[in-house]
Amino acid sequence: MKKFVTLGEIMQRLTPPNHDKLEQCTSLNVTYGGSEANIAIALANFGHDVRFATKLPNNPLGVAAYRSLRQYGIDLSPTIMGGDILGTYYVEVGHSIRSSNVVYNRKHSAIANIKYDELSLTDILKDRTHLHVSGITLALGEDLKNFTIDLVKKAFDLGLIISFDFNYRAKLWTVEEAAQAIRQVLPYVHIVFASLYDIETIGGYTTGEEYATVEAHRQGVFTHFMNHSNCKCIFGTMREQHSTHQNSLSAYCYTAEGLVHYTKKYTFEIVDRVGAGDAFVAGLMNVLNLEEQNYVEAVEYGLASGVLKHTINGDVLIANDSDIKDLCNGSVGMKR
Amino acid sequence: MKKFVTLGEIMQRLTPPNHDKLEQCTSLNVTYGGSEANIAIALANFGHDVRFATKLPNNPLGVAAYRSLRQYGIDLSPTIMGGDILGTYYVEVGHSIRSSNVVYNRKHSAIANIKYDELSLTDILKDRTHLHVSGITLALGEDLKNFTIDLVKKAFDLGLIISFDFNYRAKLWTVEEAAQAIRQVLPYVHIVFASLYDIETIGGYTTGEEYATVEAHRQGVFTHFMNHSNCKCIFGTMREQHSTHQNSLSAYCYTAEGLVHYTKKYTFEIVDRVGAGDAFVAGLMNVLNLEEQNYVEAVEYGLASGVLKHTINGDVLIANDSDIKDLCNGSVGMKR
Amino acid sequence: MKKFVTLGEIMQRLTPPNHDKLEQCTSLNVTYGGSEANIAIALANFGHDVRFATKLPNNPLGVAAYRSLRQYGIDLSPTIMGGDILGTYYVEVGHSIRSSNVVYNRKHSAIANIKYDELSLTDILKDRTHLHVSGITLALGEDLKNFTIDLVKKAFDLGLIISFDFNYRAKLWTVEEAAQAIRQVLPYVHIVFASLYDIETIGGYTTGEEYATVEAHRQGVFTHFMNHSNCKCIFGTMREQHSTHQNSLSAYCYTAEGLVHYTKKYTFEIVDRVGAGDAFVAGLMNVLNLEEQNYVEAVEYGLASGVLKHTINGDVLIANDSDIKDLCNGSVGMKR
Amino acid sequence: MKKFVTLGEIMQRLTPPNHDKLEQCTSLNVTYGGSEANIAIALANFGHDVRFATKLPNNPLGVAAYRSLRQYGIDLSPTIMGGDILGTYYVEVGHSIRSSNVVYNRKHSAIANIKYDELSLTDILKDRTHLHVSGITLALGEDLKNFTIDLVKKAFDLGLIISFDFNYRAKLWTVEEAAQAIRQVLPYVHIVFASLYDIETIGGYTTGEEYATVEAHRQGVFTHFMNHSNCKCIFGTMREQHSTHQNSLSAYCYTAEGLVHYTKKYTFEIVDRVGAGDAFVAGLMNVLNLEEQNYVEAVEYGLASGVLKHTINGDVLIANDSDIKDLCNGSVGMKR
Amino acid sequence: MKKFVTLGEIMQRLTPPNHDKLEQCTSLNVTYGGSEANIAIALANFGHDVRFATKLPNNPLGVAAYRSLRQYGIDLSPTIMGGDILGTYYVEVGHSIRSSNVVYNRKHSAIANIKYDELSLTDILKDRTHLHVSGITLALGEDLKNFTIDLVKKAFDLGLIISFDFNYRAKLWTVEEAAQAIRQVLPYVHIVFASLYDIETIGGYTTGEEYATVEAHRQGVFTHFMNHSNCKCIFGTMREQHSTHQNSLSAYCYTAEGLVHYTKKYTFEIVDRVGAGDAFVAGLMNVLNLEEQNYVEAVEYGLASGVLKHTINGDVLIANDSDIKDLCNGSVGMKR
Amino acid sequence: MKKFVTLGEIMQRLTPPNHDKLEQCTSLNVTYGGSEANIAIALANFGHDVRFATKLPNNPLGVAAYRSLRQYGIDLSPTIMGGDILGTYYVEVGHSIRSSNVVYNRKHSAIANIKYDELSLTDILKDRTHLHVSGITLALGEDLKNFTIDLVKKAFDLGLIISFDFNYRAKLWTVEEAAQAIRQVLPYVHIVFASLYDIETIGGYTTGEEYATVEAHRQGVFTHFMNHSNCKCIFGTMREQHSTHQNSLSAYCYTAEGLVHYTKKYTFEIVDRVGAGDAFVAGLMNVLNLEEQNYVEAVEYGLASGVLKHTINGDVLIANDSDIKDLCNGSVGMKR
Repeated sequence: MKKFVTLGEIMQRLTPPNHDKLEQCTSLNVTYGGSEANIAIALANFGHDVRFATKLPNNPLGVAAYRSLRQYGIDLSPTIMGGDILGTYYVEVGHSIRSSNVVYNRKHSAIANIKYDELSLTDILKDRTHLHVSGITLALGEDLKNFTIDLVKKAFDLGLIISFDFNYRAKLWTVEEAAQAIRQVLPYVHIVFASLYDIETIGGYTTGEEYATVEAHRQGVFTHFMNHSNCKCIFGTMREQHSTHQNSLSAYCYTAEGLVHYTKKYTFEIVDRVGAGDAFVAGLMNVLNLEEQNYVEAVEYGLASGVLKHTINGDVLIANDSDIKDLCNGSVGMKR
Repeated sequence: MKKFVTLGEIMQRLTPPNHDKLEQCTSLNVTYGGSEANIAIALANFGHDVRFATKLPNNPLGVAAYRSLRQYGIDLSPTIMGGDILGTYYVEVGHSIRSSNVVYNRKHSAIANIKYDELSLTDILKDRTHLHVSGITLALGEDLKNFTIDLVKKAFDLGLIISFDFNYRAKLWTVEEAAQAIRQVLPYVHIVFASLYDIETIGGYTTGEEYATVEAHRQGVFTHFMNHSNCKCIFGTMREQHSTHQNSLSAYCYTAEGLVHYTKKYTFEIVDRVGAGDAFVAGLMNVLNLEEQNYVEAVEYGLASGVLKHTINGDVLIANDSDIKDLCNGSVGMKR
Repeated sequence: MKKFVTLGEIMQRLTPPNHDKLEQCTSLNVTYGGSEANIAIALANFGHDVRFATKLPNNPLGVAAYRSLRQYGIDLSPTIMGGDILGTYYVEVGHSIRSSNVVYNRKHSAIANIKYDELSLTDILKDRTHLHVSGITLALGEDLKNFTIDLVKKAFDLGLIISFDFNYRAKLWTVEEAAQAIRQVLPYVHIVFASLYDIETIGGYTTGEEYATVEAHRQGVFTHFMNHSNCKCIFGTMREQHSTHQNSLSAYCYTAEGLVHYTKKYTFEIVDRVGAGDAFVAGLMNVLNLEEQNYVEAVEYGLASGVLKHTINGDVLIANDSDIKDLCNGSVGMKR
Repeated sequence: MKKFVTLGEIMQRLTPPNHDKLEQCTSLNVTYGGSEANIAIALANFGHDVRFATKLPNNPLGVAAYRSLRQYGIDLSPTIMGGDILGTYYVEVGHSIRSSNVVYNRKHSAIANIKYDELSLTDILKDRTHLHVSGITLALGEDLKNFTIDLVKKAFDLGLIISFDFNYRAKLWTVEEAAQAIRQVLPYVHIVFASLYDIETIGGYTTGEEYATVEAHRQGVFTHFMNHSNCKCIFGTMREQHSTHQNSLSAYCYTAEGLVHYTKKYTFEIVDRVGAGDAFVAGLMNVLNLEEQNYVEAVEYGLASGVLKHTINGDVLIANDSDIKDLCNGSVGMKR
Repeated sequence: MKKFVTLGEIMQRLTPPNHDKLEQCTSLNVTYGGSEANIAIALANFGHDVRFATKLPNNPLGVAAYRSLRQYGIDLSPTIMGGDILGTYYVEVGHSIRSSNVVYNRKHSAIANIKYDELSLTDILKDRTHLHVSGITLALGEDLKNFTIDLVKKAFDLGLIISFDFNYRAKLWTVEEAAQAIRQVLPYVHIVFASLYDIETIGGYTTGEEYATVEAHRQGVFTHFMNHSNCKCIFGTMREQHSTHQNSLSAYCYTAEGLVHYTKKYTFEIVDRVGAGDAFVAGLMNVLNLEEQNYVEAVEYGLASGVLKHTINGDVLIANDSDIKDLCNGSVGMKR
Repeated sequence: MKKFVTLGEIMQRLTPPNHDKLEQCTSLNVTYGGSEANIAIALANFGHDVRFATKLPNNPLGVAAYRSLRQYGIDLSPTIMGGDILGTYYVEVGHSIRSSNVVYNRKHSAIANIKYDELSLTDILKDRTHLHVSGITLALGEDLKNFTIDLVKKAFDLGLIISFDFNYRAKLWTVEEAAQAIRQVLPYVHIVFASLYDIETIGGYTTGEEYATVEAHRQGVFTHFMNHSNCKCIFGTMREQHSTHQNSLSAYCYTAEGLVHYTKKYTFEIVDRVGAGDAFVAGLMNVLNLEEQNYVEAVEYGLASGVLKHTINGDVLIANDSDIKDLCNGSVGMKR
């Protein structure tokens, strides 16, 4: 059994029902989510031992966020209660030719303002085999960034497998700020979730060559990066947006050994898209075994996980292994 | 006017709103349904005189189920109040590539535990022209099975037209159990709703021949069955599941006179799929006239009824004759 | 900045949630709408100075309707409170192969029974540059009809730009009644929203010629009408109903100068179709400038406005200029 | 078993949830009610054979109203489908020192506009033992009034027991109009639900005497009326409104034999007050036996029925005999 | 007609339905409120010309808050759109022996961070007769505080009548901070809403005397303050909390002329208590006329307004003059 | 820190919203509860280490029940997934003079049908200091009863403190059946929650004496029992039901040392009464320290816990230590 740990922000999510616009709604559905928390929950649902570190205000909102994690059996021992504010975000769910829209109110949250000494590298990493980090955690606050960088380094020294998702969000920081932070982390990570833009522009791994196609370009840059780092494999998804509620999704896998794999492509309708990328990561990490080099299996499984998430309300992939395998097998309809 | 009677179980159905999973919902929508009850209501909506027999606990849940039938003007004179439990079932409504899922809690319901003597063959059949029976009723309990078999035989003696829907449900009984019960009923029925598997494997009517195509196979077996029974016609639907919420449906008709008819095929999106098969039966029985041999009209009308049901919440086809005809004519959009 | 004024009825709209049929729903969502009110709100959202005249009962229902307009900053100075009844209508929202259905209860509303002297031509038109009138307002009551005809004439004398939407509703009046009223208005209007049937049969502008195609027919009749009136341009939409919830929409533009333009065609899924025609009018009027003859820009923009409305609950286009331009540019997905 | 018949209007009732004001609510709960319909349902719940006559529009709203009656097993054979409009009313539920408020929209309903010949005296009265009429039915329309007067006369000739509830509503007619109609009915009724004002001012039965107390006044006038008519007994309730949601209720009984009985007084909190008077009538009629002269039992039982109604959402007393008896015995708390 | 202006913060309020705790709710009702905004709306409902100044983020949340004011006809000309964040607060509604609980998330809102120059003294005060200011506005931010102090001074110079409500909130600032700001404002205000603590401790008006009773103490300090300032009258409410949902409320009035008036006391049940103090202020300002010295009428009317607010969901007193007068007259029950 | 363990059934609870009757509701609120689970959660909320053993079906309903416990940090290591059915119960919430009503559907649940060997005495008791058992667990099934009896004996041998709540439910078993089982447990328990009836009739501890008062009777029997067993103290609550939604509650304490304490009495209004007895037990166990003999503190604290539960929706006391202390101190109103 893998023993994961991750850290980051969990927010209260407020969603108008029934495709209402935020301007017109008179009630909001309440769930809790955040990239790393979503991954933690999905991995716990797949049966893993998962630990999560964050800081939550010691008020009813923080308690509710805490319980939303604990119900899935996540080890919250390094999570601390304190500070004033739980970050919130509003998701206006569009349809067809109307876009969805997200409004954030997370700038001053407890975790964003956390001090370096409030968390403990040792407590977080104790007895873990895997550490997952996302760029969002690096972007939230200065102390949190520095702590996270040190966490990655220490985990590397301890021999943990480290996965990293760029998760670049322009509303949180500039590309320059992201590059400054992420480049400190990149040398230590083994599994990367990234686009070409992420590796080349943010990560700074450029080859100086010209490429005939985007595929060649991606392969060139990715290979260059893996050759000059500890990274063993890079994964990413490719989305086609036929409409706001109908998308296609496929994924790719590049490995240090030179494997290139493009998955099959799913076309599907969307109930709730938020967290699909996190479900992809979680599904993939659920089955990926670096020693077995089961990259193809992992990315196909991760893709199915990400696709399935689109049909589930809230940020979280509420699913188990057989749900994913049913989807891989193309089963739809009604089970009774 | 046809005077129908049917018997069976009506349950409380609990449905999470808004495609929520059962694991996450905090409220459940309440309706009432069951195969034979659904047919009874749809036939009453079409203007027929319909009688329904069941047993319901004399508590608020049983009373609510009772009223859900009576609001449509159904004659509940043979229905008795007693026992402890109203069966329930939960319908988790999937979407796109996520399957729907049904969880049953019906094993110990009042009607499943009914004793033979609690019901009266005479009262149920008095003044009726049509009896409809489904395999589900045969599967629920030993006494209910024996009573239903005797009911079919008595109805046959009295000259009623008897329709039978295999409705095989693996969660209720094994194929062997189903075969044992259904083979006692099959010789007496005039109108059958069945698949090839139903007739051949459960019904036991095999020809021993080899067939080049499934269509030929079906025709061979169905003809064999009709040649060796009182059955005048066999109907069934064929479903293609493009996704959980988009299906295509067509139907077939085979008659003792040798008519084979495949209907047109509808492709449509689904609001609520439960009860579609019952709506098909009800729509078909609404117009089928064995003397007039209007099989083609009947199966096309039944198919439209079944298709329309997919767009209505709850188990029940809430529709009248003009709604079905509008659909047959391809009318969609907004009436104002 | 354009200064619009329009007049008409605003009703309480009652909509069953979740595609429920009116026969089965136990709650109704409440919004307020009516063709001219919808246009007034959309124009106000686009930033224009908009005035609206109606009569509302001085009870909580009338007050709520009043506030539903005032929240958008509409000048309600000519609107009067009085009478007994706020008209209502029920919208049963179909899906796929099930049609939507509208039930009206508007016959005896305060505005329908208004007396000529309750409104003031002068107050309504003061300081306005544009008057919009729809056939619905002409259909509601005798005094309202006569007042509206005089309003158009007076606006014409004052030099306002007058737009007119036929909006023929068979449930409100006969074609003969409509023709009698509308023909008094048509000579004075500059911008017309109409179908071929509207202009030819209701408007009475026939050429006596035979046409090879419907396009030629439309062009012939429209040109004839514009040659014999003050009308500068005619707009209309063309809808294809693939299913109740999936339609295509395009639009046309004909001008007195001979321009004929057919827009691109959008195919989209529907959340709420009511008010789409009004959004088309409002979007078009938002950008149309008769002097600049920007007909093509206007009709494309109007079409996008009408299309976008299909994805928004309620009668009203809750959108601003950038929302429309995003749609014109084909942007879908999630903004975050 | 008593065989009741009554006639009148059933409306759609729209109630804002959660004590919201009509001005602020965005959804409305939907039920169906009307004085005579409420009584019919409560009597059916008590196990009686009940018939109800009305006219309902043949649209989904009328059908829903129809089913709301039929679910209780009411015989609707004399009810006809036709006309345009189902009357509606809105109930704003106050609390504490805020009053509740009712807004009606019933003036032009199908039943109010019914023609005399649409109903049949014979069909309505066939095989009935009791006719109940309320002043509201007399107030709705001219033909309906005349038909109802003739119905009372014919029922009297046929030997039915006739009960009459003044139910004077100032929003429906003037005292003079009420007097004109009701005085034609009063000579034929056996059981009357009335206040002193009803009998004296509307009914026109004055003694010319002066009374020291209101009780003496009531007794004097009631006795005078009963001495000069076929009326055997008069019942009424007395309400003290401590606040909008806390009231006390007691009742009185006067009989031709000179019995005067004042019931005990209940003090209770209110969930939904509408229909409490109808529940009083229904409960009383459930047990009243003129031959047995069980007036005291009847009025106490009726009062308990009326009190219990205050705790049930909607217009209708959903209760059976044991519920009423539990209340008479003072049982409160939780049954498990 | 009085012409009011006020300024301050309007927030999104999130309320769990049905007395749920924040820890358990899965949806939140959405309204908008803030002390000064609540007063502005109530005064507009009473028919006054009211202007309101604030700063709102130019996103859907800010737009919704903006519309929540404009629907009542409030002049928002000095309100500016900008900044990032709309403040929010959560109201957990207790019952009986469970307290209600408010959680704020307002620290970094657009209005709290406003710069002095973003608002204009002249635009806000133009054509106004009354300025209302509350201590909350002084507490939110440094620039806002300084602007508000200058606004009061300028209004004083322009001859406006100035009302001031201490509204001290310990979660927003310390007593020392409050004293520093409020003492700059106090010399210029004519109408004050305050407790003894407010005037003595925060305002710094102490007499140095000893008093036998709290009433004498209050009178001594209040008189001292009015003798040394421009203040003409001081009002306040006194609350007894019998339980979370049942309170008593009375009020007092002290004037510079020496009038002391204690109002009658209402005891009532609570639907929603937030905003009751604002309703008191608004009701009082609605009728108070300093020249007519109708202090007693004003404070009784204000109290009734404050009491009525407790029965209305949301922060806002949705009521008109006749609603308040009905309450003064003790009318409860059902209007129909 | 105390280390508790308990075992029993957790069911899905279905509650009609808004005081609706089960006969009329169209949705049901979903929570999870059961006496021992409720106690486990409340103790976990108070900060204790709590373990819970049950059997749940491995379907979405069982998973949801499982998570409802785990969100509070309860150790579910001895809980097993299997069997078919999750028990359900329906709570119809009355008001004022209408009683609440509970309908159970729990007879055939997974835990009721559990086999002795499916659970492990050792695993359940490992590292625990306290075992709590309720009569309900003894009543559900034969194997479960025998296991629970052995569990109590083993816990006694291991030196755990054992608390026992009679919790007699006539719908589950007869007094004779209860006596047979409970008398095997009683000799081993240290803390008992019981009425006089429980100890005397079910427990079989009679003194043969006559008592002048019920208090003397209770003291006599309780003392007799404590003198002849290991029981150190007996607690119970006394309820007065002024109406369905207003009760008074007090409690008593009897100890082996002869202490008799009657607590103060709370009078309060009820939001949700289910689980109040469990909250009493949990609050009391939270503070009770047998060595310190803080019986009075414990029973007062337990009573406040039980009272507070009446104001919280669902079975569970969602509260922490400061909430209870606030109530003990009489704090009501609004915290902000």
